[in-house]
Amino acid sequence: MTKKILLLPGDGVGPEIVKQAENVLRYLIDSGQLDATLETALIGGAGYDAAGVPLPEETITQAQRADAILLGAIGGPKYDTLARDLRPERGLLGIRNALGLFANLRPAILFPQLAAASSLKPELVAGLDLMIVRELTGGIYFGQPRGIETREVSGSNEKVGYNTMVYSESEIARIMKVAFDIAEKRDGRLCSVDKANVLEVSELWREGAEAVGQSYPNVALSHLYVDNAAMQLVRAPKQFDVMVTSNLFGDILSDCAAMLTGSIGMLPSASFDEQGKGLYEPVHGSAPDIAGQDKANPLATILSVEMLLRYTLNEATLADQINQAVNQVLDQGYRTADIMSDGMTLVGCEAMGEQVLAAL
Amino acid sequence: MTKKILLLPGDGVGPEIVKQAENVLRYLIDSGQLDATLETALIGGAGYDAAGVPLPEETITQAQRADAILLGAIGGPKYDTLARDLRPERGLLGIRNALGLFANLRPAILFPQLAAASSLKPELVAGLDLMIVRELTGGIYFGQPRGIETREVSGSNEKVGYNTMVYSESEIARIMKVAFDIAEKRDGRLCSVDKANVLEVSELWREGAEAVGQSYPNVALSHLYVDNAAMQLVRAPKQFDVMVTSNLFGDILSDCAAMLTGSIGMLPSASFDEQGKGLYEPVHGSAPDIAGQDKANPLATILSVEMLLRYTLNEATLADQINQAVNQVLDQGYRTADIMSDGMTLVGCEAMGEQVLAAL
Ligand SMILES: CC(C)[C@H](C(=O)O)[C@@H](O)C(=O)O
Ligand SMILES: CC(C)[C@H](C(=O)O)[C@@H](O)C(=O)O
Repeated sequence: MTKKILLLPGDGVGPEIVKQAENVLRYLIDSGQLDATLETALIGGAGYDAAGVPLPEETITQAQRADAILLGAIGGPKYDTLARDLRPERGLLGIRNALGLFANLRPAILFPQLAAASSLKPELVAGLDLMIVRELTGGIYFGQPRGIETREVSGSNEKVGYNTMVYSESEIARIMKVAFDIAEKRDGRLCSVDKANVLEVSELWREGAEAVGQSYPNVALSHLYVDNAAMQLVRAPKQFDVMVTSNLFGDILSDCAAMLTGSIGMLPSASFDEQGKGLYEPVHGSAPDIAGQDKANPLATILSVEMLLRYTLNEATLADQINQAVNQVLDQGYRTADIMSDGMTLVGCEAMGEQVLAAL
Repeated sequence: MTKKILLLPGDGVGPEIVKQAENVLRYLIDSGQLDATLETALIGGAGYDAAGVPLPEETITQAQRADAILLGAIGGPKYDTLARDLRPERGLLGIRNALGLFANLRPAILFPQLAAASSLKPELVAGLDLMIVRELTGGIYFGQPRGIETREVSGSNEKVGYNTMVYSESEIARIMKVAFDIAEKRDGRLCSVDKANVLEVSELWREGAEAVGQSYPNVALSHLYVDNAAMQLVRAPKQFDVMVTSNLFGDILSDCAAMLTGSIGMLPSASFDEQGKGLYEPVHGSAPDIAGQDKANPLATILSVEMLLRYTLNEATLADQINQAVNQVLDQGYRTADIMSDGMTLVGCEAMGEQVLAAL
């Protein structure tokens, strides 16, 4: 059956990098290797510019109909002064919520060809292969009540801002199952990160991890407080196999882990709903400072296509081919500016995409 | 006037490291250089063991009467199964709250003698001197409502855990003033860290930073989202002068920054109330695995005495002497296990303290 893939280029470098990923998909389709159709829709600032909102209804409908979604990036300074509800981030949070994409997988992998790019000493990161599983539709990102209001504080009126970090047992169990399943297929070690020494919501999180762990005798479950987890990531990241954590902690730790590889322009991510439908996107942002200059690194987006083929379309062979093509291009010495080093060949976004196509 | 200094050894390695710091203080007192008396009180697990609570009333009274407080560390596995209110952490959170210690200063400094200990490449951390100002009595640590309760979630009853991240304008203004004052005395650059693209409480935080910034024309204020801040700390920590952030974000980022130096056993911290009264403590924890083995590094605690003399007792000359003594001992090649490297002389906690005394 023909699969529907929805492309959401978004803002900043989004359109450039998604274009190169689209070329890869079109090549697979045109050569008869993949039975899929491609559609495009608006999100983020692009949605606001065209339709006045960061997540047009039409985009939600198309996303619901699609089998898989490939997103570029969202956001940019020109939207910073908009009202909260109109900002590009609302589009991203909105689609996560609308599609129920509760499980966010963020691998932090060091490409051996790029080992020198890490800010850590090479021996500490060589061979790094860490998977962070982040809960994506709960916690303080979506918790109610939230707002800014004027209240009496010790005798006088002032503005107070508040948000609620909240998880229910079923939300915790759901993400834990995803994380344990992944750990079981990898090295069998799962580290759950929380702040249970201070927060009640984390106490329930920890209980939930233990409860689900009963059904996974082959996975060794450990717990770290989030402050210690941040330290351990910097000190010795290779000690971890799979980490699972809440929305906010996952936001912070996954960016920290991605940066450890020194090549955030290389890292894909996937977000799944309960049926395994996925939205795939690079870990990096919209990089407005280099947008439209053909300087962005399209490889994280192309590797997001690899994940899309592997996890949602079950096309492991095609996924492997893409991975090999990317590795070949790196072996040949082609580098975008973000991963450039002495003796390598500097190429732009488009040329990098063409090299991957050539390698395919 | 004779100053009262209260010692709170606490748990794990706390008693050992505070003992060495106490020896330094006693030397200054006995030699007539410092007019102070020393008292000791119980906190954390030690409080629980002796009095059944992690923060005995007596300790609060003594702390309120003291001019300055020196804390070791709290916590240990034997207390992990206690009810939440009896756990050692409650003692620490309780004293912060009881004394109104809202401003937590956590320097991340690289000692040139220990440059090799960092997990980052030497050129990225050489000369690192970063100050993190963390709000310590507000935010999600103390926000109400909080708890775990059974609620109906989509048709069935389940447990829900929740905490509230909350800040008022005056709480934000108060910590911003501290941070701007410090930045003004340093390199004049202040980076405020929040998650204003998602959280309302962070929106108010950012507004508050801007408002206070109006009175500090000599300080350049910037803003970073917390995920990006974690990345930037790993990528290029020397870009920062002073960072200011909320309780939870400060907990995570200050531990991350401390670890960047590779010598968390060397870092002191200070927490102030509105009158400048301070509680001083090492950044590291109670390290139960090496407690009682004379292996802990007492230098962070001795450097906390340096901060205590400098900031609360206004004894800059004595503070400088302690700093010089610590540097001399490092120059002489003495190292505890945590900072040991080839060719250096390994010493225990007590011997390290004696070397500092000898250097004084
Ligand atoms: C843009 C922002 C809302 C988003 C988040 O915080 O989730 C981003 O940082 C991410 O991690 O995908
Ligand atoms: C022990 C714990 C409650 C404490 C905190 O989270 O504040 C510690 O991590 C710290 O940073 O001082």
